[in-house]
Amino acid sequence: MEFSSKLLQEAVNEMSQLPGIGKRTALRLVLHLLRQPKEQTSILSQALSKMREEVKFCKSCHNISDVELCEICSNKLRNDKIICVVEDVRDVMAIESTGSFRGLYHVLGGKISPMDGVGPQDLNIETLVSKVKEGIIEELIFALSSTMEGDTTNFYIYKQIQGCNVKTSTIARGISVGDELEYADEVTLGRSIINRIPFETSLNS
Amino acid sequence: MEFSSKLLQEAVNEMSQLPGIGKRTALRLVLHLLRQPKEQTSILSQALSKMREEVKFCKSCHNISDVELCEICSNKLRNDKIICVVEDVRDVMAIESTGSFRGLYHVLGGKISPMDGVGPQDLNIETLVSKVKEGIIEELIFALSSTMEGDTTNFYIYKQIQGCNVKTSTIARGISVGDELEYADEVTLGRSIINRIPFETSLNS
Repeated sequence: MEFSSKLLQEAVNEMSQLPGIGKRTALRLVLHLLRQPKEQTSILSQALSKMREEVKFCKSCHNISDVELCEICSNKLRNDKIICVVEDVRDVMAIESTGSFRGLYHVLGGKISPMDGVGPQDLNIETLVSKVKEGIIEELIFALSSTMEGDTTNFYIYKQIQGCNVKTSTIARGISVGDELEYADEVTLGRSIINRIPFETSLNS
Repeated sequence: MEFSSKLLQEAVNEMSQLPGIGKRTALRLVLHLLRQPKEQTSILSQALSKMREEVKFCKSCHNISDVELCEICSNKLRNDKIICVVEDVRDVMAIESTGSFRGLYHVLGGKISPMDGVGPQDLNIETLVSKVKEGIIEELIFALSSTMEGDTTNFYIYKQIQGCNVKTSTIARGISVGDELEYADEVTLGRSIINRIPFETSLNS
């Protein structure tokens, strides 16, 4: 692509560094900004740089936060004896939006994946293990994605906390509520039969 | 979506103002920036705001430029007697990349579209008409998209310059080079038969 302006070219180049945004999309976005009032661009660029400079990660659960200890961790009404272990900040948002969990979280920041060069030392595993070893936590809920990397990470943490007096559980996998059985994949359907629950329990949830 | 950080929320809100970027995509992009070094975000936001503040539009052709008169308009080697009329800056880039045109451009900045509230006065039509009326231009090439709005805009300009001693032409519509006839749409194929060209001409292009 040949640009008639160096400024335009630089803006497009930087935008196209973002994942999933190619040169053409970047050009479309930048030309959109040019058609809008100047304020929109200055608000956008200020919001981005302010966020990057000032955002903090909660010192306890590693969730994104504006303060040292995030709102969830500092909420006295929540049960600090149950910790839900997730990969990512987005998982916290997803679980929070269900309103079904009143414990705390621990954000690992990814999962163990030797193929991508991510080892246990790159994740927030050590702080989790030492939290468990303090002996206050009663239950760890593993809510990682059910991929090979997720399973490896679960198992690694499980090994690290062996000997500690803590219950471990994993979120239920099964057919989505409202889904038809005939369209479900076999692994999920098979697991949902093996891990069936008492009918009375399903009535209460 | 519930955010654990106001700064994050603002950044996501501003990103999702861009066309084709929803809240989820915006969150993915912003979280990507958080995983990258701080410099990347500051370079991005500076490139955007610098571009928006300092970029100019060529006073002659309205193309994006870093200077008053763009590189194409100020190039003495180009033929200033032929003007190619296009909708958008991207069209200039597309035609320039073919290397087949050595004249100048005129960027309208859109097309007449009453449905979207775009009238002739919102486009750079007046400057084009007065350029033509100066009498230096020998040919106008209409290279707008072949939609109802494009045709309306062509016709509006055509009416405005009637009486001026200027040739008007429009880019050829037809089957793409390399395309198979059986898959071509009927309108395009029909037009390509009606507007057929001498075989000798095709040998030279």
